[in-house]
Amino acid sequence: MAEKTWVRMVTAQTPTNIAVIKYWGKRDETLILPVNDSISVTLDPAHLCTTTTVAVSPSFDQDRMWLNGKEISLSGGRYQNCLREIRARACEVEDKEKGIKIAKKDWEKLHLHVASYNNFPTAAGLASSAAGFACLVFALAKLMNAKEDNSELSAIARQGSGSACRSLFGGFVKWIMGKAEDGSDSLAVQLVDEKHWDELVIIIAVVSSRQKETSSTTGMRDSVETSLLLQHRAKEVVPKRIKQMEEAIKNRDFGSFAQLSCADSNQFHAVCLDTCPTIFYMNDTSHRIISCVEKWNCSEGMPQVAYTFDAGPNAVLIAHDRNAATQLMQKLLFCFPPSSDADLNSYVIGDKSILKDAGIEDIKDVEALPPPPEIKDAQRCKGDVSYFICTKPGRGPALLSDESQALLHPETGLPK
Amino acid sequence: MAEKTWVRMVTAQTPTNIAVIKYWGKRDETLILPVNDSISVTLDPAHLCTTTTVAVSPSFDQDRMWLNGKEISLSGGRYQNCLREIRARACEVEDKEKGIKIAKKDWEKLHLHVASYNNFPTAAGLASSAAGFACLVFALAKLMNAKEDNSELSAIARQGSGSACRSLFGGFVKWIMGKAEDGSDSLAVQLVDEKHWDELVIIIAVVSSRQKETSSTTGMRDSVETSLLLQHRAKEVVPKRIKQMEEAIKNRDFGSFAQLSCADSNQFHAVCLDTCPTIFYMNDTSHRIISCVEKWNCSEGMPQVAYTFDAGPNAVLIAHDRNAATQLMQKLLFCFPPSSDADLNSYVIGDKSILKDAGIEDIKDVEALPPPPEIKDAQRCKGDVSYFICTKPGRGPALLSDESQALLHPETGLPK
Repeated sequence: MAEKTWVRMVTAQTPTNIAVIKYWGKRDETLILPVNDSISVTLDPAHLCTTTTVAVSPSFDQDRMWLNGKEISLSGGRYQNCLREIRARACEVEDKEKGIKIAKKDWEKLHLHVASYNNFPTAAGLASSAAGFACLVFALAKLMNAKEDNSELSAIARQGSGSACRSLFGGFVKWIMGKAEDGSDSLAVQLVDEKHWDELVIIIAVVSSRQKETSSTTGMRDSVETSLLLQHRAKEVVPKRIKQMEEAIKNRDFGSFAQLSCADSNQFHAVCLDTCPTIFYMNDTSHRIISCVEKWNCSEGMPQVAYTFDAGPNAVLIAHDRNAATQLMQKLLFCFPPSSDADLNSYVIGDKSILKDAGIEDIKDVEALPPPPEIKDAQRCKGDVSYFICTKPGRGPALLSDESQALLHPETGLPK
Repeated sequence: MAEKTWVRMVTAQTPTNIAVIKYWGKRDETLILPVNDSISVTLDPAHLCTTTTVAVSPSFDQDRMWLNGKEISLSGGRYQNCLREIRARACEVEDKEKGIKIAKKDWEKLHLHVASYNNFPTAAGLASSAAGFACLVFALAKLMNAKEDNSELSAIARQGSGSACRSLFGGFVKWIMGKAEDGSDSLAVQLVDEKHWDELVIIIAVVSSRQKETSSTTGMRDSVETSLLLQHRAKEVVPKRIKQMEEAIKNRDFGSFAQLSCADSNQFHAVCLDTCPTIFYMNDTSHRIISCVEKWNCSEGMPQVAYTFDAGPNAVLIAHDRNAATQLMQKLLFCFPPSSDADLNSYVIGDKSILKDAGIEDIKDVEALPPPPEIKDAQRCKGDVSYFICTKPGRGPALLSDESQALLHPETGLPK
C-alpha cells in the first residue's frame, strides 16, 4: 500500500427468489439455521434484483453503506456477521496496472464502502433482503478475492438473511438445513439452472394493504415458540415434500409442482395462523386471487398456475407456460383492474410482452375483457392490486464489469 | 286410537352453542363421529335459539316439516336418521283427558308434523343447525315419551348435525368423541351449568361477507382427506387442550380460558387453510376484530376478552365480565360503526343493557366515542359489521307449556 489514493471496486447484481417449499422457523437465531430445508425459484434479475457496488480504499476511515441512496448503519449484527465472515476469507489482491497490492492481513484494517440499489420497491415485500445480503456477500467475495464457491458463500449470506442463501444461484435452489452446530453445512445448492424449465412465466400481484405486517423475524420466532403445528410440519411434512418437489422440478411435472407449491404456501400461512399472537399475512385480496386461480385450475382439470405467498399479501403466480400466463393476465386484469387514475404502463411492469399477447394495449382493452367463465358472478375489484410484475425464472449473481453501472464514484468511493 | 281427529303436540326451545375447543373432522361420515372431543358454551336462548313444535295425529298422511314458515323436505339422511332413532325409542302415551292412547308399536305407523323457527337469521352462520337438530330430537323425545336422558338424546341429535349434540345442555358442554363403532358413546355431557360462571358476557359480531363460504360438511371432509396437520391436531394437540380447558372452566380461570379458546379457534382455521382446496372462513374484518381484541388484551397485561370463530367470518367474543364487555362494546363501535342509514336499535341487538352501560344511547354517542388508546391510528370501518348481538351463557332445552307459543295449529297440525 504505497499510496493512499486508490479505490478498488466491484459491482455485482443478484436476483431475489421466492420459496416454493417455505422456510419458516429458525433452530438457531444468531447463525440463522432453519428448522427445515426449503426450495426456491430465482426470479429474473432484469425485473427484480439488487445491484451492489463494494469499494475498498486506504482513504476510507470507516465501513459505510448506502441503500437506495440513503446512508444506513452497518452496526447491526447481521451485517457484522457477513463482514466478519467474508473478511476472514479474504486473500491477496494485486492490480499492477493501478498499482494496488493488498496483502491478506491488510483486509482487517481496510474499510469498506457499500452502495446497494433494488430495481423494485423495497416496501413491496418482495424479499429485498434476500437479494441484498446475497449481493453484498457475493460482491465482497469478489472484491476480496475469496476462493469460496457460491455454496460456501451462501452459508455466509445466510447469516445476513436466511433466504439470501438461495439467491446465490439461478434456476431452482435448495437450502439444505444442515446438521452442524456451527451452521457450516447449512447452505444452498442449485437443483437445476434457469434453462432447465424455461417455459415457466411468473406474474407477481403486488397487493395493496391497509395493515402493517408482522416482520418475518418476529413472526418466525413467535411461531417457533407458540405454534403446536410448526414442529410437525418441519419434521413430518416438509422432508417428504422436499423430495417430491425435487422430483417435480427434475421432471418438469407442472401438476405436482403446482400442487406442492400451493399446499406448502397454505401450510406456512396455517402455521402463522396457529401462532400466538396470531399472524395473518394474506388478506381478502390474496384470498380472491387464490380463489380465481383455483377455480381456473379446477375448470381446466389440471393446474395451469401455481400460487405462493410470502410474509405479506402479494401473490406470486407461476404459470405453466406463456399461453397459460396470457390467459391468467386476462383473468387477473378482469378481476383486478387498475384504479381509474392509473395508467396501464405502470400497472403491468416487467416483461410487457405478456400484455401484448393478451391483446391488451390500453385501459379500454382492460374494460372490454370478458368475465372468466369459470368464476360465477365475477366481481371487479378496482384498486385492490397496486401493480403486476411479469417475469420468469432467472440466473444467479453476476459481476457487472461496465464501470458506468457502479453505484460508487471510482475516485472518491462515495455514491454517485 | 278410537277416533282420527286428535292432534298431540309438544313445543320445545333449544339454544345454539359455540365451540371453544373446536370440532373439525369426522371419522365416520354417516354416524357423524368426530376425530376429537370438543367443548362448547351454550348461548342464552333468549337471544339465539330454535323453537320447534312437533305434532302427531292419525289424520297426518306423511311426515312434514316447516322451517321458518317454509315447507322443507324431510327426506335427507340426517332427518331420517334422527326420526328413525327416536321412533325406535318411543313409548306408550296416554292422555285420558283428550282421549288419546298411543301404543308403543303405533309410533311406527303414525306421521309427524314439525315446525321450527330460529329467533336469529339462519343465514348469519350462527350454528342454526345445531339448535335445530337438538330441538327436533328433544321435542320428539318428549312427544313420544322416550325415557332417554339428555346425553342419550345428544347421541341422536349428533346424527342430524354433529354440534347439535352439545345443544342438549346449558352452560359448558363436552362432546366426548367416543370409541364405539356404532357411535353409541359419542355424546355430550354437561361440564358445568350456566350458573357456574355467570359473569361472562358474550358479544357476537355478525360480519358482512362478499363471499359464499364452503359448507362445513364439505370443508371438514376436504380437511380430513387433504390436511397434513389435522390428524396431528386431533391426536396430539386437542386431548391436552380439552383437559386444560376443563380445568380452566372449573376454576373460572379466565386467563387460561381465553388463551385456549383463541389458540384453538386459530388452529381450526389453520387446518382449514392447510386444506386442498384451501378454505378461508375469516376475512379482513375478522382479522381486524382479532387485532383489536389482541391489542387490548396485551395492553391490559391479561386477557379481558376471548375470541372464537366458527365456519364463517363472524366473531364470537367472550368478555371476562360486564365491565370488560362494556369497554369492548365501546371499542367495537368505534372501530365498526353502523353504516350511515342503520339505526342503533337494530345494530346492537340482544341484551341492550350493555349499550346503556357503555353510555351509548344514539348514533351521536357512537360518533363521539374516543379511539381505543391501545390501537395506533385506529380506523373506523363503517358497514363491515352487519350487527352485534349481546348475550351470555345460557340454559339447555326447555319445554314450552304455553300453547300460544306452539308453531302448529292445535286442531289441524298445520303451521299457524
